[in-house]
Amino acid sequence: MAAPVRLALQGPIARVTLSHPAGIDAISRAMWRELREIFVQIQGAPDLRCVIVGGENGGFCAGGDIAEYPQFRFHPETLRRFHEEEVWGGLAAMLACEVPMVAELAGACMGAGLEIACCCDLRIAGVSTRFGAPIGRLGFPLAPREAQLLAAVAGEATLRELLLEGGQLDAREMKARGFVQRVVPNEDLLGEVRATAERVAQLAPQAARMNKRTLRRMAGRAAQAPLPEDFMARAYDYATSAEHREGISAFLEKRSPRF
Amino acid sequence: MAAPVRLALQGPIARVTLSHPAGIDAISRAMWRELREIFVQIQGAPDLRCVIVGGENGGFCAGGDIAEYPQFRFHPETLRRFHEEEVWGGLAAMLACEVPMVAELAGACMGAGLEIACCCDLRIAGVSTRFGAPIGRLGFPLAPREAQLLAAVAGEATLRELLLEGGQLDAREMKARGFVQRVVPNEDLLGEVRATAERVAQLAPQAARMNKRTLRRMAGRAAQAPLPEDFMARAYDYATSAEHREGISAFLEKRSPRF
Amino acid sequence: MAAPVRLALQGPIARVTLSHPAGIDAISRAMWRELREIFVQIQGAPDLRCVIVGGENGGFCAGGDIAEYPQFRFHPETLRRFHEEEVWGGLAAMLACEVPMVAELAGACMGAGLEIACCCDLRIAGVSTRFGAPIGRLGFPLAPREAQLLAAVAGEATLRELLLEGGQLDAREMKARGFVQRVVPNEDLLGEVRATAERVAQLAPQAARMNKRTLRRMAGRAAQAPLPEDFMARAYDYATSAEHREGISAFLEKRSPRF
Repeated sequence: MAAPVRLALQGPIARVTLSHPAGIDAISRAMWRELREIFVQIQGAPDLRCVIVGGENGGFCAGGDIAEYPQFRFHPETLRRFHEEEVWGGLAAMLACEVPMVAELAGACMGAGLEIACCCDLRIAGVSTRFGAPIGRLGFPLAPREAQLLAAVAGEATLRELLLEGGQLDAREMKARGFVQRVVPNEDLLGEVRATAERVAQLAPQAARMNKRTLRRMAGRAAQAPLPEDFMARAYDYATSAEHREGISAFLEKRSPRF
Repeated sequence: MAAPVRLALQGPIARVTLSHPAGIDAISRAMWRELREIFVQIQGAPDLRCVIVGGENGGFCAGGDIAEYPQFRFHPETLRRFHEEEVWGGLAAMLACEVPMVAELAGACMGAGLEIACCCDLRIAGVSTRFGAPIGRLGFPLAPREAQLLAAVAGEATLRELLLEGGQLDAREMKARGFVQRVVPNEDLLGEVRATAERVAQLAPQAARMNKRTLRRMAGRAAQAPLPEDFMARAYDYATSAEHREGISAFLEKRSPRF
Repeated sequence: MAAPVRLALQGPIARVTLSHPAGIDAISRAMWRELREIFVQIQGAPDLRCVIVGGENGGFCAGGDIAEYPQFRFHPETLRRFHEEEVWGGLAAMLACEVPMVAELAGACMGAGLEIACCCDLRIAGVSTRFGAPIGRLGFPLAPREAQLLAAVAGEATLRELLLEGGQLDAREMKARGFVQRVVPNEDLLGEVRATAERVAQLAPQAARMNKRTLRRMAGRAAQAPLPEDFMARAYDYATSAEHREGISAFLEKRSPRF
């Protein structure tokens, strides 16, 4: 079986491919843990100059693997471990990695996919890529650190719209909102991302890492600022709520939720 | 006489209508106080899922009620009470309210109207709506908390332009700048806002409130961060200045100010 | 010989012209020092109401004067003094100046030019003006305070793209990203900037200064927030690196760098 997150090297350019074993473009708990290990490894590789982060089968990442949710979402402690250790472990390793990263955004970039894209330095999308965070339909809110990351990178107005209305925005709209830096025809996406990575790899590599370190020391205040402890202590109390159970049950039973 | 701010309920959706008794689209001191009470009431209503905030007679809110200004603006203490208690009382109640809010932006959205729109989660505008903050013509600066809110939501560059040049921007431009999320033909505005509120009301209501709470705990650092005390202590010293008096006198006398 | 930075007054409007003695549109160390003095002088002039900041010969500022770099860049202490005293001295004087400023962006607005534009309140560009920060080709990173200023004003996503990919963006793109407020045909640039300055100069001058003071007390947290001391202590250690020397040598020898 292929690894769910694959690291491939081609000279100074690496490609990290999100590849769910079931062939869907979701991210599982095992994939979050592998994402963390791979980015720790990338950060420790002195000759790497650029990382492309992409999906497979025409999609980037459409969100969490909902089939796994009943295992852990309905207990505050297992829910906390999922968000604070597995998800944030992966995202924090990406944010700590000083090698420049280019997100190759095809198909769907939703929920967890949006969060992974936020950790990249450049975001390039195919014209028909769709963006969203429709967890209001699944009956649960964003985890605080993830909300803070999304607000800092995607902008608070866009985040409020996506979360509270539950809709999708297309690539041109996400370009207009400053989240995506470039939109290209779908068939040009891989070529444009590769050409961008090559331009990045030609510039001074230590200067690039220093720039990312500087931006992290500052960005820390917005994207990774500490959240109030009293607030964090209660952030996962909703695990046992009827609304949460109904949202996920409805999805798995392929019916509309009744909130 | 109709109440100057009206709350109407239709199932899980409320509408707050700004309605100046004189039929103008300005906001009076009494309206700020009512705005506060209504949003405290909304926050305490467990079954509400979405609030539409709009004006009447085709306008949202063109700013403060300048006819009232000579009563209180020329003394530092009454001016402070106006900004810190009446205006900020209303805005703070909106910011503390966890029910999702959609601003229905028609006609003019200027000064105080811009501030009220900043407290909403989604901003939808008719194509001919105009935006501005032309108080430089009235001879006074933004109150610090209001400036901070506007800078956080409308963006510092847009705020500097509107304040320092005194011009207006149209709905498409405010969309391009990320303040407005959607622009529709004027005749479609009410329908689009209502449809948006219905989409919001279909999603998990507790998750929506938790998302707003999370964003407030973070946004607090930008939109509601504490300002330096020494600075706040002197923020209304300008009340007695000749420039301030000239700006307001000229407006009320329908002549150009001489600064 | 003409002064490298000239201050010209025309009633309440001043023009600061960046004018490199060699007729190139770069900024030298002497010019940074003069920029500081001129903005201290402007801040102390009670009758000034607006400052236009522009270049000469059709360009705004294409960056630092690279011919000077071998004199001071390869020793941590002289490099620190350059960035922390000369460059930041000029930028800090601009940021501390409460007179409204309009940037007249023609030709190239790169590196140091981008930083100077960030200190202005309004940015108006000719349609063919180009923007960038291609120092990755010169083998060095942004100085921390300058990175923080650029991230706050130009946006972190745009800064990452310009720094890490080394490309250029045109005026319309920088308008779409919210950095430039207005783009006009090249031949209309001077007229539009002058008309804007006249609009600014007609509004209440003390209110404008108070607005800028308020925004600075807040913006301080983002654009001028203190950086961690341990980080600043090591920020210029790269001065002696082979990569740094190679980037600058290659430029001066008119060859491609080998990183």
